[in-house]
Amino acid sequence: MQASLPKIGISMGDPAGIGPEIILKALTDEKVLNTCLPLVIGDSGVLHEMAKKLDIPFPLTSLDTLSDWQDNSSPAILSLTSLQHAVCGEVSKSSGHASGLYIQKAAELALGGEIDGIVTAPINKESFNLGGFDYPGHTEFLAHLTKTENYAMMLMGETLRVVLLTIHCPLMEVAGRLTREDTIRIIRLSHETLKTYFAIENPRIALASLNPHAGEGGLFGEEEEQILIPASRMAREEGIDVTEPLPADTLFFSAVRGKYDIVVCPYHDQGLIPLKLLHFEDGVNVTLGLPIVRTSPDHGTAFDIAGKGLAKPESIKAAIFTALTMIRAKKTSQGGIAYEK
Amino acid sequence: MQASLPKIGISMGDPAGIGPEIILKALTDEKVLNTCLPLVIGDSGVLHEMAKKLDIPFPLTSLDTLSDWQDNSSPAILSLTSLQHAVCGEVSKSSGHASGLYIQKAAELALGGEIDGIVTAPINKESFNLGGFDYPGHTEFLAHLTKTENYAMMLMGETLRVVLLTIHCPLMEVAGRLTREDTIRIIRLSHETLKTYFAIENPRIALASLNPHAGEGGLFGEEEEQILIPASRMAREEGIDVTEPLPADTLFFSAVRGKYDIVVCPYHDQGLIPLKLLHFEDGVNVTLGLPIVRTSPDHGTAFDIAGKGLAKPESIKAAIFTALTMIRAKKTSQGGIAYEK
Repeated sequence: MQASLPKIGISMGDPAGIGPEIILKALTDEKVLNTCLPLVIGDSGVLHEMAKKLDIPFPLTSLDTLSDWQDNSSPAILSLTSLQHAVCGEVSKSSGHASGLYIQKAAELALGGEIDGIVTAPINKESFNLGGFDYPGHTEFLAHLTKTENYAMMLMGETLRVVLLTIHCPLMEVAGRLTREDTIRIIRLSHETLKTYFAIENPRIALASLNPHAGEGGLFGEEEEQILIPASRMAREEGIDVTEPLPADTLFFSAVRGKYDIVVCPYHDQGLIPLKLLHFEDGVNVTLGLPIVRTSPDHGTAFDIAGKGLAKPESIKAAIFTALTMIRAKKTSQGGIAYEK
Repeated sequence: MQASLPKIGISMGDPAGIGPEIILKALTDEKVLNTCLPLVIGDSGVLHEMAKKLDIPFPLTSLDTLSDWQDNSSPAILSLTSLQHAVCGEVSKSSGHASGLYIQKAAELALGGEIDGIVTAPINKESFNLGGFDYPGHTEFLAHLTKTENYAMMLMGETLRVVLLTIHCPLMEVAGRLTREDTIRIIRLSHETLKTYFAIENPRIALASLNPHAGEGGLFGEEEEQILIPASRMAREEGIDVTEPLPADTLFFSAVRGKYDIVVCPYHDQGLIPLKLLHFEDGVNVTLGLPIVRTSPDHGTAFDIAGKGLAKPESIKAAIFTALTMIRAKKTSQGGIAYEK
């Protein structure tokens, strides 16, 4: 029954980062191999070399074209590049260009239904930009590739999910960037995603306040009254189970004890402080709103330890298992037959 | 040897809040009674009534003046008011005025050396203000009573200490309120307090950045370059072991694993999110910089549950034990004889 396992495309990420290493390590895990059929999209030579260097098994069949794999049941690598000398830890145009090609192909295969979802290993933004891809990161590039305008970044671990209203901007600009429209859009997206992809019938959404003590009735800021309270009321009128903006300092204690399925956070560190405190090594990044399932480990290329055998595969394994959860829930919600566990 | 136990003054807080209940519950703990000699400063009638209502022992000798207690070795209450009908959960001028008197007396006794430190049960700010005390809270009132200008609020639990550069202000104003002078002042104060009151010879201080990714070299904000980096360099030149501003999302994972003794945080929720996530029930508030030892539970009056028997004494017990730690370390650092354990 191997053939019925979901097919997960894993883009190799930057060849000079820890992507190749964590992918190889993840593929030594029987639970990974028993629950999905992985298709790495990357560079066969780079992976081979890394496996040899670190003495990790290389369990992949190398494919030149995907048609060689369709009826096959073993993990494979679709090799798109032949980088002879990707030097670990170095920024380069060729590595960055390659990392973009892998993502592009992975998205194309997922859109075409040839794989069921994608897990993306980390890219180096400088190399990626040098290599001709003018995007801040995976999220925006995948939104472009899949023609998606309504998307958001969710980070999650076993005990907590957070979704961000603003991401990479100075803290003092956060208040000015918040809008009612965007807040309600992300509340809706969280609601829909948790229903469809996480099989949560009536997701309980907490909205974190921007200001301390939820603004203390306007004493410590107006954004609760002006933006967050109206947005949460509008969402509740649509039948979404979302709170009024709650004081962020006490909210996460309840959230990790199961009171909420997700916390909508106005700014980056507000969501990422508790998430990384609890899930530093096994956090997963999920893009909400894409027409394909996409997850990634919640860490970067870690150039400082690339190729040294020190990188841990926990986060990419968690990303694979999260993608599988999402794929199964989606199939079930569509009335299709769920993949076997 | 009971007489050599440190004397801890416990101000009763707002009579209508959970103060009386948590104090009585804390005084049923043998560890509390075996390690300190508690002097509650409050209202004997209110405490008696609460003990009766909730069926908690009342282990206190009632004193009209402190001279009755000096040679005594049993826990006592110095009764300053005779509130006949403090109604649980109600804001009132008389409760607020009483809560201010207790703090005033506690500070006076500590300044005079008649007690070794104080633990303050929560007050209701509205009542406190109605009662004639025009201060935002304990911290500012105690600073006034002890003529202290250089002070700061530290919150701590077993795994984490945080100190705040700004406290109660809108998030968008935080950046404008940060200064080099204040940052270095609080770094110094943290250093001195941990040395003197926590017996940490060379405190390792982490400075959290204001902006995501520590500003990513100016891309996400200038405050790291303009304020935090210069302040941390100046402090290092003075021999203080403080980091450059670190990305706040990953910092707390290391801090709770023992890499740092304290984290200096630019804003309220940045420090309180991880602290309350880990120490919601046993967090302690410590005022740095006062000439007296002062701690308090890290929660409010909880008017919604006052008098119902639901309040937990963990936080006030932790506050008592923290005060004891500080008193012992201070004595040792002064070359005096430490209290026995």
